[in-house]
Amino acid sequence: MAKKWVYFFGDGKAEGNAKLVNLLGGKGANLHEMTNLGIPVPPGFTITTEACRYFYENDGKIPPELEPQVREAMSRIESLMGRKFGDPNNPLLVSVRSGAPVSMPGMMDTILNLGLNDESVEGLSKLTNNPRFAYDCYRRLVSMYGNVVMGIPHEEFEKLIEQKKHEKGVTQDIELTAEDWRDLVGKFKQLIRDRTGKEFPQDPWEQLWGAIKAVFKSWNNRRAIEYRKIHGIPEDLYTAANVQTMVFGNLGEDSATGVAFTRNPATGDKTFYGEYLRNAQGEDVVAGIRTPEPIDKLKEEMPTIYEELMKIRDLLEHHYKDIQDIEFTIERGKLYMLQTRRGKRTALANVKIAVDMVKERLIDEKEAIRRVTPEDIEQLMHPVIDPNVKAEPIAKGLPASPGAATGKVVFTSEEAAEWADRGDPVILVRLETSPEDIVGMKKAEGILTQRGGMTSHAAVVARGMGKPCVVGCENININYDKKEFVTSTGMTVREGDVITIDGATGNVYVGDLPKVRLATVPEFQEILRYADKIRRLGVRTNADTPEQAKVAREFGAEGIGLCRTEHMFFAEDRIKAMREMIIAETPEDRKKALAKLLPMQKEDFKQILDVMDGLPVIIRTLDPPLHEFLPKEQEQIEELAKELGIDPDVLQKKVESLAEFNPMLGHRGCRLGITYPEITEMQARAIFEAACELKKEGKNPIPEIMIPLVADAKEFKHQREVVDRVAKEVMEQYGVEIEYKVGTMIELPRAALTSDEIAKYAEFFSFGTNDLTQTTFGFSRDDVAKFLNLYIEKGILPYDPFQSLDVVGVGELVRIGTERGKKVRPDLEVGICGEHGGEPRSIAFCHKVGLDYVSCSPYRVPVARLAAAKAVVEEESKSDIH
Amino acid sequence: MAKKWVYFFGDGKAEGNAKLVNLLGGKGANLHEMTNLGIPVPPGFTITTEACRYFYENDGKIPPELEPQVREAMSRIESLMGRKFGDPNNPLLVSVRSGAPVSMPGMMDTILNLGLNDESVEGLSKLTNNPRFAYDCYRRLVSMYGNVVMGIPHEEFEKLIEQKKHEKGVTQDIELTAEDWRDLVGKFKQLIRDRTGKEFPQDPWEQLWGAIKAVFKSWNNRRAIEYRKIHGIPEDLYTAANVQTMVFGNLGEDSATGVAFTRNPATGDKTFYGEYLRNAQGEDVVAGIRTPEPIDKLKEEMPTIYEELMKIRDLLEHHYKDIQDIEFTIERGKLYMLQTRRGKRTALANVKIAVDMVKERLIDEKEAIRRVTPEDIEQLMHPVIDPNVKAEPIAKGLPASPGAATGKVVFTSEEAAEWADRGDPVILVRLETSPEDIVGMKKAEGILTQRGGMTSHAAVVARGMGKPCVVGCENININYDKKEFVTSTGMTVREGDVITIDGATGNVYVGDLPKVRLATVPEFQEILRYADKIRRLGVRTNADTPEQAKVAREFGAEGIGLCRTEHMFFAEDRIKAMREMIIAETPEDRKKALAKLLPMQKEDFKQILDVMDGLPVIIRTLDPPLHEFLPKEQEQIEELAKELGIDPDVLQKKVESLAEFNPMLGHRGCRLGITYPEITEMQARAIFEAACELKKEGKNPIPEIMIPLVADAKEFKHQREVVDRVAKEVMEQYGVEIEYKVGTMIELPRAALTSDEIAKYAEFFSFGTNDLTQTTFGFSRDDVAKFLNLYIEKGILPYDPFQSLDVVGVGELVRIGTERGKKVRPDLEVGICGEHGGEPRSIAFCHKVGLDYVSCSPYRVPVARLAAAKAVVEEESKSDIH
Repeated sequence: MAKKWVYFFGDGKAEGNAKLVNLLGGKGANLHEMTNLGIPVPPGFTITTEACRYFYENDGKIPPELEPQVREAMSRIESLMGRKFGDPNNPLLVSVRSGAPVSMPGMMDTILNLGLNDESVEGLSKLTNNPRFAYDCYRRLVSMYGNVVMGIPHEEFEKLIEQKKHEKGVTQDIELTAEDWRDLVGKFKQLIRDRTGKEFPQDPWEQLWGAIKAVFKSWNNRRAIEYRKIHGIPEDLYTAANVQTMVFGNLGEDSATGVAFTRNPATGDKTFYGEYLRNAQGEDVVAGIRTPEPIDKLKEEMPTIYEELMKIRDLLEHHYKDIQDIEFTIERGKLYMLQTRRGKRTALANVKIAVDMVKERLIDEKEAIRRVTPEDIEQLMHPVIDPNVKAEPIAKGLPASPGAATGKVVFTSEEAAEWADRGDPVILVRLETSPEDIVGMKKAEGILTQRGGMTSHAAVVARGMGKPCVVGCENININYDKKEFVTSTGMTVREGDVITIDGATGNVYVGDLPKVRLATVPEFQEILRYADKIRRLGVRTNADTPEQAKVAREFGAEGIGLCRTEHMFFAEDRIKAMREMIIAETPEDRKKALAKLLPMQKEDFKQILDVMDGLPVIIRTLDPPLHEFLPKEQEQIEELAKELGIDPDVLQKKVESLAEFNPMLGHRGCRLGITYPEITEMQARAIFEAACELKKEGKNPIPEIMIPLVADAKEFKHQREVVDRVAKEVMEQYGVEIEYKVGTMIELPRAALTSDEIAKYAEFFSFGTNDLTQTTFGFSRDDVAKFLNLYIEKGILPYDPFQSLDVVGVGELVRIGTERGKKVRPDLEVGICGEHGGEPRSIAFCHKVGLDYVSCSPYRVPVARLAAAKAVVEEESKSDIH
Repeated sequence: MAKKWVYFFGDGKAEGNAKLVNLLGGKGANLHEMTNLGIPVPPGFTITTEACRYFYENDGKIPPELEPQVREAMSRIESLMGRKFGDPNNPLLVSVRSGAPVSMPGMMDTILNLGLNDESVEGLSKLTNNPRFAYDCYRRLVSMYGNVVMGIPHEEFEKLIEQKKHEKGVTQDIELTAEDWRDLVGKFKQLIRDRTGKEFPQDPWEQLWGAIKAVFKSWNNRRAIEYRKIHGIPEDLYTAANVQTMVFGNLGEDSATGVAFTRNPATGDKTFYGEYLRNAQGEDVVAGIRTPEPIDKLKEEMPTIYEELMKIRDLLEHHYKDIQDIEFTIERGKLYMLQTRRGKRTALANVKIAVDMVKERLIDEKEAIRRVTPEDIEQLMHPVIDPNVKAEPIAKGLPASPGAATGKVVFTSEEAAEWADRGDPVILVRLETSPEDIVGMKKAEGILTQRGGMTSHAAVVARGMGKPCVVGCENININYDKKEFVTSTGMTVREGDVITIDGATGNVYVGDLPKVRLATVPEFQEILRYADKIRRLGVRTNADTPEQAKVAREFGAEGIGLCRTEHMFFAEDRIKAMREMIIAETPEDRKKALAKLLPMQKEDFKQILDVMDGLPVIIRTLDPPLHEFLPKEQEQIEELAKELGIDPDVLQKKVESLAEFNPMLGHRGCRLGITYPEITEMQARAIFEAACELKKEGKNPIPEIMIPLVADAKEFKHQREVVDRVAKEVMEQYGVEIEYKVGTMIELPRAALTSDEIAKYAEFFSFGTNDLTQTTFGFSRDDVAKFLNLYIEKGILPYDPFQSLDVVGVGELVRIGTERGKKVRPDLEVGICGEHGGEPRSIAFCHKVGLDYVSCSPYRVPVARLAAAKAVVEEESKSDIH
C-alpha cells in the first residue's frame, strides 16, 4: 500500500487528531482535532511533515504518491463544498498554510485564495455578487504568490497600492473599488512579468503545487532558521502544509475575521480576550495594519455568533485544559474556526492560569508546576516601575508584555544588536515589527511599536521572549530617516535618548525610572506553595549581607548556603587592618591586626545570624589569595606604605612575593587557614561570639562553618580542629551551648574523588561548582571568553558550563562526591552553592543525584523552589513512561 | 607465666633466630642465628624491643619481670664462662649494644667492658697477666660510661688522653703504659665527679642497668631521630639491647679485631673484603683512628684463623643468600664472631652481586629484581669523570663510594647545608665524619675525609646515600681553623675552591672535570634483561630532539611517549615566523607564517622518526598559550615590532589581548588548534610529509599524533578530523601508506571522567599527570612552593604530588580514565607521560591499574624498566600472602 502523505478533515470527521502533531504539525493536528470535536472547520487536508522531509532529502522533489492523494482529497472537498477547484463559474478557493510540530508564528509562509485566475475571478464576482470582493481576493492571491512563490518583495506590491490610493486621494484600502483592485491586479501581474520574466500562473493546480513547495521551502528560510536557533527547535522536524477551503471575512458587513485568546494572555484573567475586523481577511488583523475592535463589541454586533464562539471557547478549554489562541472567520453570518493552539501568554498569565485551572479542577497541582516555567517566575521578579514614583508618561500604547525596561532609543534591529553588544541597553522602537526584527528584539531591553494590537507580531514575540513591550502606541510618530519620534504633545525623542517603557500599563516615559520587583500577586505565592509541597530539595541562599539575607528569607530561603566573608574585608574601614594582617611578619603581629578585625566580623555575623534566626547559616572562612587585598600599582603601593608607616620597598617586596602565576590555583582557601591558623581562629571566634551573644538574647543562631578549597581530608581536619577548639573556648566563656556544624566546600576534583575520606570529619558538603567547573575543565573563568563562544558556536560545547552545570563531567564529580560522602556518613548534609544552584537544569540534576539542598542568590530563590518541584514532577513523568 | 623479655644465646644454642628481627633487633637476631649455625659467638642475651617500648610507654621504667630474667641469663653466662659478674678476682665482663630492627649504624650507643671496677681491674690484670690491657679496658669503660650514661662529651676524655700523650712525648695510644692508663682512669673519674657531682659506679649491676637504660634512651637521641627521618624508619620500632660476654682483640699480638664484607661492597667482586687491627678493640677499626690492615694480611699472619673465617664467610653467604657485613674478634688465637648483617653496598655492587648470585644459583632472577633498587640503577647512570680527560690528581684516598662529584670545598656540616641550600654544590671535607655530620653529608655532592678506612663512618654512610666519597686521604692535611687543606705537594685548597672527587678511584682533582655516564658494566645490562623478561609495562621516553631520542633508544626505550613540538619553535631561526603567525589577523596571514615553519618542523620530525625507526613516536601538537612566544617588556615589544615591521602599539595590544589571569587554565592545548585549525594542519602536514619521505627511503616511521588538553570528546573529534584529512592528502600526494594513530593526552579531570566518550574517537591515551595533578588538586605548579613544604612538614601531604603520583586522587582519575576508555575500546593504548612516568612508586601504580606503558626522560628509561619489573615481582609477593 502506498504511504499516506495526506490526511483529510471535514464534515465533522478527520483522519488525524491532536496527538499526530509531529506528523501533521501543530496547526494541522488541531484542525483535525477541532473537526472531530464537531467544531465548524472549513474542510481541507494536511500534507504531512514526512512529505516535507522527503522534499528536502530528494532535491526538492515531492513523493510520487503525493499527487494522486492530493487530487483525491481535493475532490472530497469539492463534493463537500459543491464547488470545483479551477471552475471558472463556481470556483473552490483554498489556502495553503505551513504548520510545523512546534509553533513558529509568522516564520513560514501562507498563500490564500488559490484557485482564482482571470476567468474564475469573474465567476466569484458573480457568485458573491460582489466584484470588489472578488478582485480584492484576486489581488491578494497575485501579490502573495508573487511574493512567496516568485520571490518579489512584498513592499513592491504595497507600493503600487499606495500609489493607487494616492492617485485616488484616499488613505484606507477599504476605500478602493472593484475597478481599482482589477487595475492593481493588472499592475501586479506586470510587476511579476517585469521582475521574473514569467507569468502569474493561471492554472490553479500549478498555483497549488507552487504554493505547497513554497511552504516546504519556507522551512529553511533565513528567519525560520534564526528562530529555530534562538528557540532551540531541531532542524529535522519539518513543516506540514495545510490545504483548506477558503472562507471569507471580507464578504461584506456580515462577515468578519478575528483572533482571540480564551483567557487574557497578558494578565491571565478568565475573560474572553480578542479582536476582530469586519469585512477583512485574517492577515489584516495579525499584521496590525488596521486597528481592530475588541471582541466584546461582537456581542453587540453579532450576538448569536458571539454566543456560539463562547461555547466553542468553553469546549476548547475543557478539551485542551489550557488557554487557547484561536482564529475565526465569519462568512456572511456563519462562524468558521480556522485555528486553535496553545495560547502564548505572559509569565504572569501563565502562573495565574495554572493556579486558576487548579481551582477550576481542570488540572492538578503537579500539572500546574509542570506548566509554570522557571523563566515565568524569574519574569515576575523582574522590575516594574516603582509605584511610589510620580512620573508623567509621554505616550501610552497597548500593554503587550509586562515588565519595565529602560534603554536608549534605537530604530532598527541592526542598531539594537550593535548597541547592545557594546553594552548599551536599548529600547527598539519600530512602526511595527516583522520576523526580520527577531535578533534586535532579542537584544533589546524592551520593544515599543507605533502600530499593531495585542496579537501583533511584536506583542506575540515579546511575550514569548519575556521582554517588556508596548504596541499600538499611536500617539508617537516615528521618522526613521531623522532617527526620532515625536509625541502627540510635540516632544521629540531622538536616537540615543533614554526612555522607560512599562509593558504592564503601556506607558512610555522619558529617562530612567526607578524600578522595584513585585512578585506579590497571590498566584505567585500559590504556585510556590504547590512547589514547596512537591519538592524534595531544600532551597538556601547565597548572601553576604543582612540585607541580602532578609530579601532571601522573604523569598522563602530556608537558610544561608554560602556567606562569603572576604567581601566584608574590602569595606574602607576594614581594608587597612586586613592589610596590616597581610604584611605582618610574625604570628604575633598578625594576631594584633586580626584583633582589630574581630569586632567588625562579629557584628557582621551577628546581624546575619539574627536575620536568619532559627535557620542554618553556612559561613565560609577566608577564601581569596591575599594579594587581592593589596594594591598592584607602584603609586598605590607607595601611598599604602605611607599610610601603614612602612618602607615602600618592603611593601613592594611583599606584593611581589604574594604574586602568583595562576592565582586560581594558588595560595588561597584553606591553604591560607593552614598557613595562618590565626585567621581561621579569628573568624571562628567572631562567629561563635556572635552566636553566643544572640543566644543570650533568646535567639536561635545556627552557624555552620565551611572550610574552602579542601583537596585532602587532612586539610579539613586541621582547620576543623581550630574551629572546634575556638568554639569550645567561646562557649565556655559565654556559658552557652551553640548547635553548629563544620563542613567543607567540594570545589576541587580531588575533594570529590576522596570525599569518603573527607566525610569522616566533615558534617556537610557544599559543592562549589564554579571552581569545580574551572578545575574539571581546566578553564579559567576569567580567560575562557577567548574560546568559549567559538566552542558553543561550533557545537563543541552545548552551553556555557559556568551557567548551566556540565552534567557529564562536573556533574559526574558531584555524583561521585555525594555518593562516596554519604556512604561514609549517611546523614551528611550535601548542597550546592555555585551559581548553578539557581539554574533550573542544574537544579534538576542536583535533585537527581540526591543533594539535600541548592543555594542561590536571593532573587533566584523562588526560581529554585519551582525548579526543585519541577524536577520531582519530571522525574515522575519519566518513571511513568517506564 | 611472666612475659619473656630476655632471649639467651650461647654454647651453640639460642632462644631466638633471624626471623625474630622485630623483637630482637637486627644485631640480636643475627647473633642468635649465628649461634644456632654453630658459629663461635660469645654467649649473651638480648633484651627485647618490647622492653624498650615498655620503657618509653612507662616513663623510663623497666618491666618488673625484666630484672630477674636478666639475673638468670647472666648466671647462665657465668656458668658457661666460668667467671662471675663483679667478681674481683675472676670478673666476667660484658658489653651492652643497641640493635634496632632496622640497621642504624653508629646512631645509637654501645658500652664495653661492663663489670670492671677499681677492684676487679686488678683481678683482670692478674688474670691476663697484662696490667696495661686491664687498665686500657677500664679507661674505656669509664670514658664510655661517662659519655653515654652520664652525658659528658667524648672529646673531654680524649683531651685528657692527648694531654697525657703530650706529657709523655708520644703520639700513639699504644705507646701509653699501664701506669699512664691507671692515671688517666683517675683523671676520668675526677672529670665525672667535677661535671656531674656523682661517682663512676663501682657496682657492676648498677653499671649494667645504667648501660641498658642508656641504650634504650639512645633510640630517641637527636641523631637517631634525624637518621630515621632521612631513611623513613618508623618511630615505634624501638631498639633491643644485647648483653654479651666481652672478648678482647687487645690482649696482645695474638689478638685482633676486624670487620669484613663477604664480597667487595664497592664493586661487588666476589673477593673477601675487610680490615683488621692487631691488639685493638672493635671501635678502633670503625672509628678510623688507626688505619687498619687489609684482611689478606691475616692469611699470612694467622693462617688458621683466616681459614676458619673463610669457612664462616661461605656459611653465612649460603645461609643468608646475600653479602654479609661481619665483625670478628680474635682473642689470644681464638676467633669470635660478634656480628653479621646484610652488607651495605654501592649500587654497582648491589647490581653485580644480584646478577652473580643468580649465576651462582643462590637466588633467582625475580629475587635479583627484588634486591636491585631504582636508586641503584639511577646511581649507575650517575656521571663519572670522562675517561678521555687527562688530569693529574692532587691527592689520592680510598675509593669509598663510587661516582664523580664536583663542588666547592666546605669544612663543616653546617656550612655544607647552608651553601647547598643557597644553590652552591659543595664537597664536604672532614678529618673524619661522625653521626653529627649526617645532614651536611646529605646536602653535599660528595664527601672527602682525611682519615678512616673503607668501613669508616663516612664510607658506610656515603655508600648508603649513594654519594661519591673518598676516605683516608692521608696526603691532605686539613686545618679547620684556617678553612683550608694542604696537599703533600704543598698545594693549598681553601674553602670555596672547586674540587672534583672520584669515588671510584679515590682521586681528588682541582676544578670541575667533565663527566660522562657509564652504566656499561655487563651486570647493569643483565639486570635490565631480567627486568625486560619480567615486566608487563612498556617503557617509552619523552624526547623532543633526535639527540634525546638516540640516548633513550640506547637505554632501551621502546618508542617515544611524548615529543613536544613547542620547544622547536623557540629556536632563534623559528621564533620570528612563530611570532608572525601569532600576530596574524587573518587565517591567510597565519597560513603564510605557518608555511615558513613547515619545512623546519618537517626536518625535526624526520630526524626523530628516523632515530626511532620502527618504533612508535607520539608527537604532541602545539600546547602552550601563544603569549609564551611573545615578549612581555615594553622595550622588547618595541624591538620586535621594528623587526616585524609593524606598529608597536598594535603589537602591544596583541600582547595585552593574549595575557591571561590563569595561563595554566587558559587558551592553550587543543583550544589553540580549534581556534586556529591551520596550526594543527601545518603540524600534521610536517609529520606526514616527514613520514612519507622516510617511508620512500625504505624506513618504517610510526607517527602517533597526540592532541593535548582535551576536555571533551568533541574537541578531540574536531582535531582528529584535521589530522586525518591532512594525512590522507599527504599520503596521496606521496603515494605511500603510513601506519599512524591519533590519540590524546588525558590531563584534565573531565577528560578522565568522560574517557569512554573520548575513546570512541581516540586510539590512544597518554595521561599527562603533571597537568592532571595541577587541576585535580587545584595546585599551580608554579605557585605551590608557597605552601607545599609546610603541607609536607605538617603531614597534610605525605609527599610532593608533582614528584610521586598522588594515588588516591590523581591516581583515581587515572584508574577511572583507563577503565572507562578500555571498556569502549579494548585495544586502546594507554600510557603516562607526566614526570611520574619515571618515578618508581608511580610506575608501580601504573602497572597496577593496567596501563600499557610509561614514558619518561631518556636517563630514567633504565630505572623505569627495572621499576616496571619490580611492580610485577611485588604484586606476586603480595598475592603469595593471600
